[in-house]
Amino acid sequence: MSKLVKSIREAVILSGLKDGMTVSFHHHLRNGDFVLNMVMAEIAELGIKDLTVNASSLFDIHAPLLNHIENKVVTGLSADYISAGLGRAISQGIMDKPVQFRTHGGRPKDIATGKTPIDVAFIAAPASDAMGNCSGKYGPSACGSLGYAYADAMYAKKVVVITDNLVSYPLQDWSISESYVDYVVTVDAIGDPKGIVSGTTRITRDPVGLIMASHAAKVIETSGLLKDGFSFQTGAGGASLAAAKFLKEIMLQKGIQGSFGLGGITGYMVDMLQAGCFRNLLDVQCFDLTAVESLRNDPRHQEISAMHYAAPGSRSAVVDSLDVVILGATEIDTGFNVNVHTDSNGVIMGGSGGHSDTAAGAKLSMIIAPMFRARMPIVTDRVTCISTPGKDIDVLVTQGGIAVNPARVELRESLVAAGLPIVDIHELKEKTERITGKPKRIPHGDKVVAEVIGREGNLQDQIFSIL
Amino acid sequence: MSKLVKSIREAVILSGLKDGMTVSFHHHLRNGDFVLNMVMAEIAELGIKDLTVNASSLFDIHAPLLNHIENKVVTGLSADYISAGLGRAISQGIMDKPVQFRTHGGRPKDIATGKTPIDVAFIAAPASDAMGNCSGKYGPSACGSLGYAYADAMYAKKVVVITDNLVSYPLQDWSISESYVDYVVTVDAIGDPKGIVSGTTRITRDPVGLIMASHAAKVIETSGLLKDGFSFQTGAGGASLAAAKFLKEIMLQKGIQGSFGLGGITGYMVDMLQAGCFRNLLDVQCFDLTAVESLRNDPRHQEISAMHYAAPGSRSAVVDSLDVVILGATEIDTGFNVNVHTDSNGVIMGGSGGHSDTAAGAKLSMIIAPMFRARMPIVTDRVTCISTPGKDIDVLVTQGGIAVNPARVELRESLVAAGLPIVDIHELKEKTERITGKPKRIPHGDKVVAEVIGREGNLQDQIFSIL
Repeated sequence: MSKLVKSIREAVILSGLKDGMTVSFHHHLRNGDFVLNMVMAEIAELGIKDLTVNASSLFDIHAPLLNHIENKVVTGLSADYISAGLGRAISQGIMDKPVQFRTHGGRPKDIATGKTPIDVAFIAAPASDAMGNCSGKYGPSACGSLGYAYADAMYAKKVVVITDNLVSYPLQDWSISESYVDYVVTVDAIGDPKGIVSGTTRITRDPVGLIMASHAAKVIETSGLLKDGFSFQTGAGGASLAAAKFLKEIMLQKGIQGSFGLGGITGYMVDMLQAGCFRNLLDVQCFDLTAVESLRNDPRHQEISAMHYAAPGSRSAVVDSLDVVILGATEIDTGFNVNVHTDSNGVIMGGSGGHSDTAAGAKLSMIIAPMFRARMPIVTDRVTCISTPGKDIDVLVTQGGIAVNPARVELRESLVAAGLPIVDIHELKEKTERITGKPKRIPHGDKVVAEVIGREGNLQDQIFSIL
Repeated sequence: MSKLVKSIREAVILSGLKDGMTVSFHHHLRNGDFVLNMVMAEIAELGIKDLTVNASSLFDIHAPLLNHIENKVVTGLSADYISAGLGRAISQGIMDKPVQFRTHGGRPKDIATGKTPIDVAFIAAPASDAMGNCSGKYGPSACGSLGYAYADAMYAKKVVVITDNLVSYPLQDWSISESYVDYVVTVDAIGDPKGIVSGTTRITRDPVGLIMASHAAKVIETSGLLKDGFSFQTGAGGASLAAAKFLKEIMLQKGIQGSFGLGGITGYMVDMLQAGCFRNLLDVQCFDLTAVESLRNDPRHQEISAMHYAAPGSRSAVVDSLDVVILGATEIDTGFNVNVHTDSNGVIMGGSGGHSDTAAGAKLSMIIAPMFRARMPIVTDRVTCISTPGKDIDVLVTQGGIAVNPARVELRESLVAAGLPIVDIHELKEKTERITGKPKRIPHGDKVVAEVIGREGNLQDQIFSIL
């Protein structure tokens, strides 16, 4: 018995893929991923049409998808994040059916419950044996965690593993087991290592970023959550990393040992692990080589599935035990609703990813954002798109002051008592507009190009075409 | 949010357990398990009746179950193995409904497909955090692998983790994730370490056992399978371990590096790993302390779920890649059907466990058994119970000669050419009966006390009451 097939084409044929079905992909190879394009090219050549692509995220490298959309090979799209290159085309109305945006926790939930069934899942695997035991930790295209691919593997009707690193059976330290895998295909390269992970993560040197980071760390220190057992997630943006740096200094100075760092993991979180700030890292995705190496070698650094990370449908997820998350925003409105799907002009250039999941789970969810970008204010009356509802956002940190969700009365009092520059979010908006001027709201088209599905499955917002 | 509840009683109440439902247990704590008895005592006190107990295996320590059966608290029983103490009572007809015997691979398959749904699974966990991330590797009651409990956790409607070792969140190196766990209960002790694992596994010194072991090793050497990449499973019996010892010597002498050792793992398999005979051990259950320590500390030694180990319903299982398995028998008939469920008098004292699964999967499945035990011949015209069908058994090794399944013509020729003492199984039967006399078949009662369900789901045999 062998699951090895000669080519992606053969695997597609054997999988029984037909018009109208759904194929899925994960995004751990990020902007270095070759697999989605290779698979979709074969599917297109085979003349299969009207497919839905369910990808955990899509990057600019996936631009060939636009041709497949134009040619009606792909007529449905579901993703948790879509980068600007593809996003602009979608905002221009390239698709007939609206894209479905989910969260990193909502996606595996809907796959597991059968709401979004997958016919054929394609798993890009940096290492696999011939029976499909596979891992992201080893090989020339190592990406670290395969967290987002678990649900695809567990619930798809057919599962194809595509690898450029076939190892002897059994692969030691597999992430996804052969129990779920139908076919294994070897290719020359599943990705470009330069696009898969960045070499280093960089902390901001921008003075505005540093001010925000310093405020963010002080908010956390004052919140009462920064004590032994503290848990933390932050993004890979410059200001977020700088906040982590300040936090690390406070933790080391006060001798605080946290429990876990969570999320997409950067080398900076690895530094904090190694410095003793956390006992463990729980990793759904590696952002850089340091994280990949740490996941491979340090038993304190563990891979988690997207379900374990963030799914609202399971009995619990790690986000439910999270103390503090630092998140970004392209817009936030006076009701604390946050937009990370579009820019201020309504053009798709992102998505929730784990934003809504961590915001809902964390005891303190904090947005760090500058008051304005390219003269567009961050704070608006109503965000262009509600990515994360205001009820789940506690604090907004800007260089012009810190706004606290009015529902968090005690937190606000603590921060005021600590001498932090607290402002009402309406004041912050006015203060910003005194600098930038009141922005003109750009009118949008009539076509719904995307639906934003909240993590609990509700239709949270719609994104309209641009004119 | 916390999943911690005060007592097993509270967990049972919260789980919504009602008359007629199914509860499940795993058997990694073996004859040291306190959990099944503690849970069933609470259930009985709560007045819940007519339950089915689905346990991966039952041992003599579970004797209190007999009272629950008499009191109609338990009216259905499903297990892969039932030891002699309980088995005798079942053979005497204590239950109205027949016991359902499955294999270690068939059980998770039927749980996963919903054929045997579980309402409440109780997971005995040597280590757990308050959210239910749990492991068998750590703590005073460490048992190593939790392989048989995965399906219960993944598919039961409610899951209760019971631990005597509550650790800070998150437990590092969990086996079963919080995604599946509803409640966590702490108790003083989940088991008696002395009954959970044996201190050491002992190789036979009995001359008959050593002759059989030596023959077994030579059969493997001659089979053509003993080369680099070789994979192997053996039981914990004295002759099987002695065969492994001889095999190890041959492998070291010839410089053969196998791929993996599989199964319930003993210290002897750990020795073979450490000596370089295998690259990996895949472990569904630890039999002794050496195995527990190795699983905890050696990354080459990995835990697998029962599904990954042996389930016929998944895309593949490790048994499908297995070269050689050495198995036991209480009886084998001239059609090579094997009985491991009852003794020669038809009294239940075992079960298939992984017997049928590995026999079906392995390229060479070998039975080691003495020609007779207590003057009862091993070879019969028809086994009392077909545990593993003859089509899956290749060779029978006894001290009086080696019988080869007539379907394995080439194997027989190779063994003859190698000078091994090959006998026809009918001759072996007659030879044995010349020593023991022809045994009288003991008549059985009319009541079906157990159904043996083959790994593919077929009703393979029935076990009748004893008179």
